Amino acid sequence: MEGGHGGRERRREKGWEGGGVWRGRLRDKRREAPGFPVACRAMPGGMEERYSKAETLALRRKHIGPSCKVFFAKDPLKIVRAQGQYMFDETGEKYLDCINNVAHVGHSHPYVTKAAAKQMELLNTNSRFLHDNLVQYAQRLTATLPEKLSVCYFVNSGSEANDLALRLARQYHGHQDVITLENAYHGHVTSLIDISPYKFNQLGKDSKKEFVHVAPSPDIYRGKYREDHPDPASAYAEEVKKIIEETQKNGRKIAAFIAESMQSCGGQVIPPVGYFQKVAEYVRAVGGVFIADEVQVGFGRVGKHFWAFQLQGEDFVPDIVTMGKPIGNGHPMSCVVTTREIAEKFGASGLEYFNTFGGNPVSCAIGLAVLEVIEKEDLQGNATRVGSYLLELLVEQKKKHPLVGDIRGIGLFVGVDLVKDQQKRTPATAEALHLIYKLKEQKILLSADGPYRNILKFKPPMCFTVEDAKHVVETIDVLLTEIEEATGMKTGNDAPTNAQCKIKANEGSPQPESANESTSHLNGAACRQENGFYPEKHSVPSKTIRT
Amino acid sequence: MEGGHGGRERRREKGWEGGGVWRGRLRDKRREAPGFPVACRAMPGGMEERYSKAETLALRRKHIGPSCKVFFAKDPLKIVRAQGQYMFDETGEKYLDCINNVAHVGHSHPYVTKAAAKQMELLNTNSRFLHDNLVQYAQRLTATLPEKLSVCYFVNSGSEANDLALRLARQYHGHQDVITLENAYHGHVTSLIDISPYKFNQLGKDSKKEFVHVAPSPDIYRGKYREDHPDPASAYAEEVKKIIEETQKNGRKIAAFIAESMQSCGGQVIPPVGYFQKVAEYVRAVGGVFIADEVQVGFGRVGKHFWAFQLQGEDFVPDIVTMGKPIGNGHPMSCVVTTREIAEKFGASGLEYFNTFGGNPVSCAIGLAVLEVIEKEDLQGNATRVGSYLLELLVEQKKKHPLVGDIRGIGLFVGVDLVKDQQKRTPATAEALHLIYKLKEQKILLSADGPYRNILKFKPPMCFTVEDAKHVVETIDVLLTEIEEATGMKTGNDAPTNAQCKIKANEGSPQPESANESTSHLNGAACRQENGFYPEKHSVPSKTIRT
Repeated sequence: MEGGHGGRERRREKGWEGGGVWRGRLRDKRREAPGFPVACRAMPGGMEERYSKAETLALRRKHIGPSCKVFFAKDPLKIVRAQGQYMFDETGEKYLDCINNVAHVGHSHPYVTKAAAKQMELLNTNSRFLHDNLVQYAQRLTATLPEKLSVCYFVNSGSEANDLALRLARQYHGHQDVITLENAYHGHVTSLIDISPYKFNQLGKDSKKEFVHVAPSPDIYRGKYREDHPDPASAYAEEVKKIIEETQKNGRKIAAFIAESMQSCGGQVIPPVGYFQKVAEYVRAVGGVFIADEVQVGFGRVGKHFWAFQLQGEDFVPDIVTMGKPIGNGHPMSCVVTTREIAEKFGASGLEYFNTFGGNPVSCAIGLAVLEVIEKEDLQGNATRVGSYLLELLVEQKKKHPLVGDIRGIGLFVGVDLVKDQQKRTPATAEALHLIYKLKEQKILLSADGPYRNILKFKPPMCFTVEDAKHVVETIDVLLTEIEEATGMKTGNDAPTNAQCKIKANEGSPQPESANESTSHLNGAACRQENGFYPEKHSVPSKTIRT
Repeated sequence: MEGGHGGRERRREKGWEGGGVWRGRLRDKRREAPGFPVACRAMPGGMEERYSKAETLALRRKHIGPSCKVFFAKDPLKIVRAQGQYMFDETGEKYLDCINNVAHVGHSHPYVTKAAAKQMELLNTNSRFLHDNLVQYAQRLTATLPEKLSVCYFVNSGSEANDLALRLARQYHGHQDVITLENAYHGHVTSLIDISPYKFNQLGKDSKKEFVHVAPSPDIYRGKYREDHPDPASAYAEEVKKIIEETQKNGRKIAAFIAESMQSCGGQVIPPVGYFQKVAEYVRAVGGVFIADEVQVGFGRVGKHFWAFQLQGEDFVPDIVTMGKPIGNGHPMSCVVTTREIAEKFGASGLEYFNTFGGNPVSCAIGLAVLEVIEKEDLQGNATRVGSYLLELLVEQKKKHPLVGDIRGIGLFVGVDLVKDQQKRTPATAEALHLIYKLKEQKILLSADGPYRNILKFKPPMCFTVEDAKHVVETIDVLLTEIEEATGMKTGNDAPTNAQCKIKANEGSPQPESANESTSHLNGAACRQENGFYPEKHSVPSKTIRT
């Protein structure tokens, strides 16, 4: 590469270093900036810390939008290194990561890093040039999906994916309206805030757009039809049908029904089997499509299947699947996969779709590496084994602790619903938040999610082990006991087990009899903040808690 | 990292390899997929090609959305490697890249690659944890901007950035309406298609939303007020004022005026100095903000300044600046920078803004590396020197070739407007397309852009050299002569030079007397496809052209 020789000389002559308001300022600021000497502190592992934690925090307050929150706001973590399921702070302290579903195959996986570096050294350009990585990755990714889902659009984030899914759906038959689930969160761009009740509900009562229709969350623990209903799948699907009939009467036309295959932010709601099939039937009958949002839950997290929508059965195939978080193990990339028919209709508008970074050779190399690691390390098998064991341990906790209202999950996507009262199912919000902070003191990172932030949410890197599961549950056991004692709740009661929770305690062989039996249902509603943000101050349970 | 030991055995037992519609298909497909033996071809440089070009193309047609176009559709390029300003195809053929403004500091820059790999090995996680890279990068990036632009939001693409800019603007005073320029393109997500006439105009006459207002492009070559107007800046700003007055009458409220600091896709329109100041004044007077879209043109491409909006003068400061393409040299990342006041208003809604990948330590390390390379290699100085030299050579071509209607540009952002008739300024669309294909035969990658696709558009990696400039212009000279001879146009005429083009031919010392003198203006209107897509078949000029 050329260019630049003799440049500095000329730049000086031309007044580069001279006056001018912002240039003068730049020069001053550059003294603090990279490439200029700053005081660095030695950190464990031979790394250097550029700023103290207090300085980092001060700079963050100065330069990062206040809407961007940190975990554990009253004492945020500064993480400098991570490996597998562990994160390390600036003092070398090691944390067990139970929440990071983006670092899917494990933090800093060397195979993924090497694939990225190797391709970066060769080429990183846009998809208007032919490249083997793009087509190989598309081929490999569609091979994980039912036959008819064969056409890919590579984009950069779950939000870009869901937005494009809406564009595809709307172009398909020229319809505009969208049915979404209560408490749903589908992304941060304007079009997705519009269809995310979890977000727009915070903006006031008139914030729902007329083209948006909100269906009840298929939540058999807190929803309209519960675990005692004979056929909750049909009952919840019927609610969608009613919405469709209503919109038809008003001359509106449904473009899409969109739902996470398991509602994560909305409280880890696992829809009853058969619900998606019926919804898809009703929606397609009026020219709409079914969008399965797998941004949080895809890529083998559920263990038995590669995609969470496959929990509904092999007779269910969405029209559009959107992907995100785990797809590149942290690298910004994402994908929308759809049918040939929908893709052709989208193309027929004549409008080109160009995404500058989407599908570049580096992103595709990373995507391929992630798929290879999932397979080579049998991370789906691991999710099934460890997830089942974790569920089993947690079910034991439910028997012991009145605070535990329900356990549900599948693979390494597990929720623990904390309640103040087992019968009334009163969310134990303060207790959950307190527990999260106490777990952090024990070097365990877990989040509380759901609309009441009372649900402990496990979504660890897929290399999570049975030992990790054992350690975290044992710690939770101690902490729950402390909270219950402090608040006068009786520990060790024989609280009734949720009917949906069918895990057999089978110590030493944490293998469920079938994948269905490792699924447990409960809770609907939506978290106040996606992905487990904690406020600056948290209220503690009413009575004093020993710490 | 643990997990996975003994997994494959168990997986087989559990039916992983067994029946099931999609699983059976996956197994078959995996034979063609990574990790499984496939025939590879040796390529120059010891690389291996997984598929033949025909196979790559066939797989692309099968698995990539038909809306995603390739360059040179009738004979697409398969690029396997790139370095600096050069790209290499699968046969080892070397192409001079004059179009890739994403590979800003040069393709595969080793400093950037190393920074990425080093950080990937350590940590890549979300911005809810404190990290030095995030704050250091925010500090370094804001140091290139006027003082009041101090708050960053890190996102993944130019589209995410512009969408967030709209959200910030709308939250600021609760207004909704947006003023955009004719032919503008601001991104591919729904909210940006809405404000991109270049896109929505293709969707039929009723496609403009009522909250969108389109102002004339400040184009002094083809626009309403041309180079002979005494004060085109004020005249075009007055058009915006009229729109504002009209909206006020109708009870509508302006949230933002958005414009690229130089309209790239719209035909490389360089707005007259003073236009932005006046527009900002009118827009702010009614509670709106000024969004400068620097996605295509930022990061020193204009040479003298780091940001293209700074060409308007130091008395102009936008309220929001959006970034994109060049920011990470191809890595998917992007940023929105705004004022403390706007950021606080956005935060006051209580809605968290969380972007999963935005601001992760790897993206920030890459962003820092790009800034360092721009500075260390004096790429701004190079853009000024080489860009000025390129303009100078092109002005010579204008004197010689009747096909050259106008030359305009600043730094390494240069346009050559091809016309059939100098007086009528009739766009020479077919000739431009033909030229582009002939240049490709000569191993030079250039694009034709603008609404009539008659504008040759230079936006090369910033390491482009004077030798590169000389080579491409000499080749263009030969090809233009051929086209003119074939079509009966007289070469070597004394066509009048556009009044705005003030470059002094000053061979051997390609330095303009001042940066202003290296700026040349012409053309408005919008390209049919952003970034220079070419259709499957292109029409050639009416007479036979020697090839």
